[in-house]
Amino acid sequence: MATPTIDSAALTSGAFGPAAALSCRECGERYDLGPIFACAFCFGPLEVAYDFSGGVTREQIEAGPNNIWRYAPLLPVSADVASRPNLNPGFTKLVVARNLGRELGLKDLYVKDDSGNPTHSFKDRVVAIALEAARNFGFTTLSCSSTGNLAGAVGAAAARAGLRSCVFIPSDLEAGKVVTAAAYGGELVAIEGTYDEVNRFCSELIGDPVGEGWGFVNVNLRPYYGEGSKTLAYEIAEQLGWRLPEQIVIPIASGSQLTKIDKGFRELIKLGLVEDAPYKIFGAQAEGCSPVSAAWKAGHDVIRPVKPDTIAKSLAIGNPADGPYVLDVCKRTGGAVEDVDDTQVVDAIKLLARTEGVFGETAGGVTVGVLRKLVETGQLDPDATTVVLNTGDGLKTLDAIEGTTGATATIRPSLDAFRAAGLA
Amino acid sequence: MATPTIDSAALTSGAFGPAAALSCRECGERYDLGPIFACAFCFGPLEVAYDFSGGVTREQIEAGPNNIWRYAPLLPVSADVASRPNLNPGFTKLVVARNLGRELGLKDLYVKDDSGNPTHSFKDRVVAIALEAARNFGFTTLSCSSTGNLAGAVGAAAARAGLRSCVFIPSDLEAGKVVTAAAYGGELVAIEGTYDEVNRFCSELIGDPVGEGWGFVNVNLRPYYGEGSKTLAYEIAEQLGWRLPEQIVIPIASGSQLTKIDKGFRELIKLGLVEDAPYKIFGAQAEGCSPVSAAWKAGHDVIRPVKPDTIAKSLAIGNPADGPYVLDVCKRTGGAVEDVDDTQVVDAIKLLARTEGVFGETAGGVTVGVLRKLVETGQLDPDATTVVLNTGDGLKTLDAIEGTTGATATIRPSLDAFRAAGLA
Repeated sequence: MATPTIDSAALTSGAFGPAAALSCRECGERYDLGPIFACAFCFGPLEVAYDFSGGVTREQIEAGPNNIWRYAPLLPVSADVASRPNLNPGFTKLVVARNLGRELGLKDLYVKDDSGNPTHSFKDRVVAIALEAARNFGFTTLSCSSTGNLAGAVGAAAARAGLRSCVFIPSDLEAGKVVTAAAYGGELVAIEGTYDEVNRFCSELIGDPVGEGWGFVNVNLRPYYGEGSKTLAYEIAEQLGWRLPEQIVIPIASGSQLTKIDKGFRELIKLGLVEDAPYKIFGAQAEGCSPVSAAWKAGHDVIRPVKPDTIAKSLAIGNPADGPYVLDVCKRTGGAVEDVDDTQVVDAIKLLARTEGVFGETAGGVTVGVLRKLVETGQLDPDATTVVLNTGDGLKTLDAIEGTTGATATIRPSLDAFRAAGLA
Repeated sequence: MATPTIDSAALTSGAFGPAAALSCRECGERYDLGPIFACAFCFGPLEVAYDFSGGVTREQIEAGPNNIWRYAPLLPVSADVASRPNLNPGFTKLVVARNLGRELGLKDLYVKDDSGNPTHSFKDRVVAIALEAARNFGFTTLSCSSTGNLAGAVGAAAARAGLRSCVFIPSDLEAGKVVTAAAYGGELVAIEGTYDEVNRFCSELIGDPVGEGWGFVNVNLRPYYGEGSKTLAYEIAEQLGWRLPEQIVIPIASGSQLTKIDKGFRELIKLGLVEDAPYKIFGAQAEGCSPVSAAWKAGHDVIRPVKPDTIAKSLAIGNPADGPYVLDVCKRTGGAVEDVDDTQVVDAIKLLARTEGVFGETAGGVTVGVLRKLVETGQLDPDATTVVLNTGDGLKTLDAIEGTTGATATIRPSLDAFRAAGLA
C-alpha cells in the first residue's frame, strides 16, 4: 500500500473531533488516525475509537442543524464541519406508519425513510463522513467501486466539495444506472469484468503510486465511512423522543450498517442521552443472497459466501465482511436474521407504497418483507415500538416492479367507458 | 357541475385556518369557501383570501415542525394540520451554490432544491393543501390528470391519508412513468387520447353525478392546491435569515407557482416578517413551449397558445392559465421572462449536477439554463442575492441526458489499461 500522506497538524487540531484512534475490532490493537483499514497484526477491520469525556447534551444536539451534523460531537469530524461545503444529508423522516402497522398487526410502527437523502439513499450519510476524512488526509480524488447508489453519492458529494471524483463500475451495468452515476460529471470508469474484479482492481490501485491522493470511501476511508451509519441510530432515538426502539429491522449488505446502528444505540446509552432499555436488532436479507441468514438459521458463527442472485442488487454482497459481527449483535440483543424471496420483496415494496406513500428501493422491500415474516412467525412483539428501515428510493429500481404494476384500466375518454370499466 | 357537498360545521370551526373566502382574481367577487374554482359572473379563477388579523411571529414559525406546516397560520388549513396523516412535505434545502455562482459570475447564489420532497417534486406541497381541503369537504377520492409528477404526488398523499386515489393519464405515457405513478397502488386509468383529452374527460367527470365525492386537486380543489406554492416563498425567506431574495428564477408551466411565490413574498412583507425590500421575479420556459416568454418579448399582455415540443415535459403546458398574471408579476417587480432550447436545458442539468451535486429534472435545467442566459444578457445583477428553483428530480427524466452522458472510459481491470487510458 502506498504510504498515506497525513497532515499531522490537522490531526492534532480537532479535525476528527472526538475520534481518538483506530482500533482493531479483532485484537484491540490501536493505531493513530490515518487512511488505514486493516490491522497490521491480525488483518482485522479497524474502527474508530472515541473519547467522549467531553460529553454532549440533548439540548446541544437539538440546537444543531437539521442534518447529520447535529451529531458532530459523536462523529469523527471537526466541530465546524457544517460550515464546509457538503451535501448535508440526514435527519430524514421517521414516518409514523399507522396504516402499515394496522395491516401487519403492529401497534407502534415507524418507517425510517432514508430515500429523503440528497441522492436518495443512506449512502449520503457514510460518504459525508468519508469526505471529511479525505479532506483531513489531503486527498484530492474521491473514489469507490459501485454498482449503483454509492457511485451517485460519491459523485454528488465530490461535486459539492469541489474534489475530483473517479468511480469504478462493471461495464455491463444497466444504462439507467450508468446515467445516474455519470450525471454529476465526475470520471466514471467502466471495468470489463464482474463487480468482484472491479473491487480487486481498486485494491491494486490503492497499493500503487498511481493511487496516491485517492480516497476510496469504502476501502482506505472505510473506518470513517462506516461511522456515518451511526447517525441512523441517533436520529431514530431523537425522533422517538429520546428513547430507543424496542425492535428494529435493518437490511444486511456488508453488515456494517447494522453493527453501526447497534454501536450508535450503545453510545447514546453510555452518554446518558437515552434510558438504558433493551432493544432487539433484526437483520434482513434477500433469499437470493442470504449468507448471514443461512448462518443464523444453522447456528453457525462463520459466514459461507454465496453467489448473489436477487433483484435486491444494493444488498447483493455474497461475502459480507461484517457478517460475523451481525450474528453477534442479533444474538446479544435477542433479535434474529431472516430472509424473503424476490416475490415477497416486490409485494413488500408495493405494500409500503400503498399503505404509507413511501416508494422504497428493493432493499426497502427486503426489510418490510422480513418485518412481515417476523410478525407472521411470532418473532416480533406486536405491542413493542418497532422501526423498519427504508434505505433507498424506488425510482432507482423501477424494473423490480415494472412487470407487476401498471394501469388499472385503459379506456376511451368518455363517461360511458368509465362506467363500463366499473370505476364509478 | 354536481352540487358540492360541504360540511358547513367544519368550515366554521377553523378547518381552513386564516382563509376567509374565495375571491375572483378578475372581478373581485367573493364566495364562501367551497370546492369551486371559477367565478360564476366572469369565469375568472378563484383564489383564497385570508384574514391575517391574528398575526404570526417568526418565533411561532421557527417553533413549528420541519415541513410546510410550520407556516400553517398562513395557509388554508386548520391549526392542528400537522397531527393528521399526510406526507409532511417541504422545508427542503436552500443550497448555498458557491460553485455554480462562481461559474456563472453570481456572488450570492442559492438553489432551492425541491427534489428533497417525499415524491421528489414541488407537487407534494400543493397536493398536501388540496388533501386538507378534500378532507374538509368530505371527499373520499383524490384525483388528478397528469403526465408525471402530479400522479405520484396524489397517489402517495392519498395512500398516507387513507383515501382512495384515482388518477388519469394519457395511454401513451412512457412505461417508467406509468410504473412510478402506479407504485402507490391507487387506481390509474389510462385514457386513449392526448393530455388535453384527458383533461376534458376529467372536467366531464366532475360535472357528472359519478364524480360526486371526488376531489380533483388541480380542478375543483385548485384554489387551495395553488396556495401550496406560497410555502416556497416562506421557506426561501426564512432560510435566507428572514429576508427576501433580490432576484429569483422560477419555472413556468401553468404559471401558478410563480404568481403564488410573489403572493407569499407580499404576505411576508405585509405581516412584518421580512423587511419591505424590492425583489425581481424572472420566469423560465423551454423554447419548445414558451408562450409566456413569447408574449413578454413581443410586449403583449395576452398569451397565444402553442403546441408543446420540448424535453421539459413537466412544464409543457401550451395554454398556461396564469400566463397573463405571470406577465403582470414580472413587469411589476422589474423581472423578465426568458427561454432556453432543449440543448441548453441538458447542458444546465449537467452544470447544476457537476457544480453542486444536485441532479435536477428537466424543469431544473430550464431554470438554471435561463439563469445563465439572464446573466449573459446582463438582465441579472451579479452582486444581488439570487435564488434559482429546482422543482423536481433528475431520476424522473433520465432519458433527457441519457444520450449525452456515460462512462468516461471502458478498460480492462489492470493498472496498465488505467494508465493507457490517461486516467492516472
